[in-house]
Amino acid sequence: MMKPIQFWFDFSSPYAYIASEQIEVLAAKHNRVVDWRVVMIGAVFKNAGTGPLTTRYPPLAQYAKHDFARSARFCNVPYTLPDPFPILSQNTARALLWMQAHAPAHATSFLHAAFQGLFVHNAPINNSAWIEKAVNACGANGTAAVAACSDSAIKDQLKAHTDEAIAQGIFGVPWIVADGETFWGNDRLPQLDAWLQKGRF
Amino acid sequence: MMKPIQFWFDFSSPYAYIASEQIEVLAAKHNRVVDWRVVMIGAVFKNAGTGPLTTRYPPLAQYAKHDFARSARFCNVPYTLPDPFPILSQNTARALLWMQAHAPAHATSFLHAAFQGLFVHNAPINNSAWIEKAVNACGANGTAAVAACSDSAIKDQLKAHTDEAIAQGIFGVPWIVADGETFWGNDRLPQLDAWLQKGRF
Repeated sequence: MMKPIQFWFDFSSPYAYIASEQIEVLAAKHNRVVDWRVVMIGAVFKNAGTGPLTTRYPPLAQYAKHDFARSARFCNVPYTLPDPFPILSQNTARALLWMQAHAPAHATSFLHAAFQGLFVHNAPINNSAWIEKAVNACGANGTAAVAACSDSAIKDQLKAHTDEAIAQGIFGVPWIVADGETFWGNDRLPQLDAWLQKGRF
Repeated sequence: MMKPIQFWFDFSSPYAYIASEQIEVLAAKHNRVVDWRVVMIGAVFKNAGTGPLTTRYPPLAQYAKHDFARSARFCNVPYTLPDPFPILSQNTARALLWMQAHAPAHATSFLHAAFQGLFVHNAPINNSAWIEKAVNACGANGTAAVAACSDSAIKDQLKAHTDEAIAQGIFGVPWIVADGETFWGNDRLPQLDAWLQKGRF
């Protein structure tokens, strides 16, 4: 069995969303699966002394918004900048962690529904009502998933994942690890593809 | 005549170097030429409140060094991280401005010689002796080019180019403009290529 490809992300990252729509096809091409690892990007940014692109130097913020949309079109991924943006997504992340533990067969469906909910439908994906409905639609127990968002063990797990990301040197998402090699950003998927094809380059 | 592609850069940027080795072939493919525009990246970074990647949060600096080399290999461009890095390159930039004005047929040869000097041969490209020899090797007057590095009009021209870049919202290099559309980074060359092919996308 080939080692899974780690995909570290936060639901509020446009580039993570764009990459999330492509990574499974890329992984499957190389007989790999994706190990989805959700973190809280706010804590990751705070540790690195940075912040969301859209809150930085105004011309950079403006370019980033333009580039999110253009990169999505370039990758043939539907996309609209959510309003407001960025949003908190810790409940969505906790619901995913609960599903990964208790309804693993449906966890990836929920993940894509949440990303698409935010970046295609401008849906309030961090709200209990949205989470309950989305989890139910994936065939799992929405009530239990919402309850998990207030569960201290799940909260601690999300914090632990985030701490682990920071300890590994992660400072942004999507952060992709294949056989120990790290790739930061949706724009590094072509390099990841070549790396998996050739073993290295 | 199609409009030239603007390529804004500083000689000390690895990603600008990697892109400089590819942009002419890409432009020619679309019946375009390159309008090379040198700036002082230090002033651009200062204005944006940033700095060289290798001086930022240590894991980011470490990733950047790894990614410079990997991106060069991915693009089949020879590359070695200069030591020391980053370096000042204002004299190299002034010599280029002098050549663009007084020996335009040889200016691009000098530009590539300087980029390759730094990123392949670890040469002291900001030193008068190196500049004189390189300009002579390109078939222009090395003595005059070195004198231009101390010329107040050339110094002012480099400052004016840098101010113009900042006024346009440039916050990093390579910064590429095609028909008003802006592309930041070597990793956006595939999007530039698609844009030139399709008119837009």
